[in-house]
Formats: sequence, C-alpha cells, structure tokens
Amino acid sequence: MAPRDTRSRILSAATPLFAKHGLNGVSIRDLASAAGVNMAMISYHFGGKKELYAEILKRQFEGFRYIDAIAASDLPPLEKFEQYIRGTIRRYRENPYLLRYYVSELSNPTPCFRMIVRPAVHKVLKVLRDAIEQGISRNHLRKTLNPADGVLALAGMINFYFLVAPATKGFVADHRQRDEELVRHFMDIVKAGFVRNNRPKNKGAARS
Amino acid sequence: MAPRDTRSRILSAATPLFAKHGLNGVSIRDLASAAGVNMAMISYHFGGKKELYAEILKRQFEGFRYIDAIAASDLPPLEKFEQYIRGTIRRYRENPYLLRYYVSELSNPTPCFRMIVRPAVHKVLKVLRDAIEQGISRNHLRKTLNPADGVLALAGMINFYFLVAPATKGFVADHRQRDEELVRHFMDIVKAGFVRNNRPKNKGAARS
Repeated sequence: MAPRDTRSRILSAATPLFAKHGLNGVSIRDLASAAGVNMAMISYHFGGKKELYAEILKRQFEGFRYIDAIAASDLPPLEKFEQYIRGTIRRYRENPYLLRYYVSELSNPTPCFRMIVRPAVHKVLKVLRDAIEQGISRNHLRKTLNPADGVLALAGMINFYFLVAPATKGFVADHRQRDEELVRHFMDIVKAGFVRNNRPKNKGAARS
Repeated sequence: MAPRDTRSRILSAATPLFAKHGLNGVSIRDLASAAGVNMAMISYHFGGKKELYAEILKRQFEGFRYIDAIAASDLPPLEKFEQYIRGTIRRYRENPYLLRYYVSELSNPTPCFRMIVRPAVHKVLKVLRDAIEQGISRNHLRKTLNPADGVLALAGMINFYFLVAPATKGFVADHRQRDEELVRHFMDIVKAGFVRNNRPKNKGAARS
C-alpha cells in the first residue's frame, strides 16, 4: 500500500471512531484494527494518537471556513446572517461527524479545544458581532439590540436545531428539502427581532 | 454504613464519572472505587451499571419539570416564553452535570434516550408550541410564525448559550449576575420576532 493510501485509510477509519468514543475512548490498537494497518503506521504517519486526533479535528473545523467569505463580503448585515444560517446548515449536512466533535470538545475539552475549537468559534462570533455593530451604527438594526447576545441567539437557533434533531423526530421534519423553509422561518424571527422598529410616521411628526 | 448512605454515596460518586466519560467509559470497578464501596454493592442497590446510569439520568432530567408549571399556568404566551428561558437558566445553573448528560444522550444515545430524554424534550417542545399556537389564534402573535420552528429558535437561543459557554469566555460575561440581562435581551428578540406586527392604524382605516 502506498504511504498516502495508508495515511488516508487511517484518517477515514479514525474519524467515526473518535466521533463516537472521544479521544480517550479509542486506543491505538482500535485505530490500527479499524484501518487494517499495523499499529506502528499510526506513529509513523501522525506521530501518535493525540496528533492523529488533532489532525482530524483540524479537518473537521475546516467546515467553519465559510465565515471568511462572509467577513470579506460587503453584504448588508441581514444578508450576512442569512449566509451564516445557510452556511451552518451546509456545514452540518455535508459533514455528519462535525457536530459530535464540536459538542464533545465543548463538554469534554481536549488540548485541541484551545488551539482549534475556541479560535474557530471566536471568529464566527466576532464576524457576526461586527455585522450587528455595523448595522446598528448605520441605523439598520435597533439600537437596543445587544450585539453579543444577538449573535448568540442567532448562532443558538441554527446550531441547536441540529444538536436536538435526534429528539425532534415527529415534531419537525428535519431533511434537506425543508432547509430553505427553515432559513426563511429563522430569518423572519431574526429580521423582526433585530431590525430597527419603524414607528408610524404620523406619531413622529406629531411630536416634532 | 447504612444501606441508604451506601446508595447515596454511589449516586454521588457516579454522577460526575458518567458525566465525564459516558455510560461506556466507566466500569463497575471505577464506580465502586470512586464511591469507596464493594463492587457487589452496585448490583445490590441498583441491579447493575446500566440501571445505575438510568437512575442518575432520571434524576438529572427532573430538572425539566419546571415545564409542567408553565403548561398548567394561564399566563399569556410571551410570559410563558420568559418563564421557560428563566427556568432553563436555573436548570443549568443549579445542576452542573445536566448539560453533559443531555448532550451526550443527543450525540451518543443510550437506551435511556427513548425512555427519558426524548419524552422530556418532546414535552417542552409541545408546551411551547401550544403556547405559540394559542398566541396566534388569539391574534397576539403573527400568523406567519411557524410554531415548531419558533419553538426551536427559542429553545436554541438559551440552550446553545450554555453549551457554547466554554468557548465564549472573553466574548460575553457568563455569570449569574448577568442572567436577568440575558433574559431581557433574548426576550426582546423573541417579542419583536414573534409578535404580530401592528401596522399604523391609518393604513388599515384607509383600506376598510
């Protein structure tokens, strides 16, 4: 087997194993056996179990990269939020293991949490907070909106939707065909909840 | 040691262990050693490891009981949502292990998921959905609000807030002193996002 094949076989076999059992719940022996390779190959290709886990986590968190495009864009805040919701849906739909790694690192952090997870989360929160602050300063969003809590509300809606999905069967239809409807429903709440409330013009006129 | 003391010692020692390592990551030996009891005492008092885990999970999910009071109350929908947010905050503040059990059952379900977790989640979702539907039918909430997705948005905000807390240090101040402010910020979003949009009266009058 070519070295590159061995390497990718180990990565493919290890990804679902670590997702299910966590870093400490999987041994080098389990990994080698699942990949059908000699145990020494894991050290040879990755340096060890922890380094293999770190490599997988890094690849999983590449799913957070859509935030860079949002940050670099000139879109108005509400469109950035919509891109964010859509990107988050795609992130989970395209990668069935990401949520488990994310949640496991949040509730039982490994040394990778500080190096990979927290910086990725911070970047998302910062980009969205900047968008809210810009929207407030340009008078598009209501001045009373708290930027940080607004971001956490927005991120909470869409992330929790996927986390709680195993328990919502029979309550909502969770499938790709409904994703655009979900985006619309959440954006309706975000729009009304974030946007500056335009009072009836008469009232303002009467006062001035 | 009196049997009742042994029983509660096992429960106290097992709760953080299962929270950290999950059902499969903890052995009877680990449990007995942490509790300072003979391994046979675990079978004697609980029947076995799985039954002990089920007993702990049941106790953890008693933290969801505040939903019964909300369901039984005559409060208008928005006040029910506020009670729900406040009750959820209390649920996590008072029980440092609940979130880990909850998240672990969602991402790596044990047989308890069907018996304890899903029914508890379903009850919360149903009570909140009923409140939204009632609010829509009484013309307090906007007719275009999707009840199920509205509930998931509401539950998502407050649950994700606690889940992601380890990654939000330096972004928001997460402590009890700020909880009332958080309730207000989230309720501002919920109110504006859920409530029927009152159009300027003139417009309506001109049309009729």
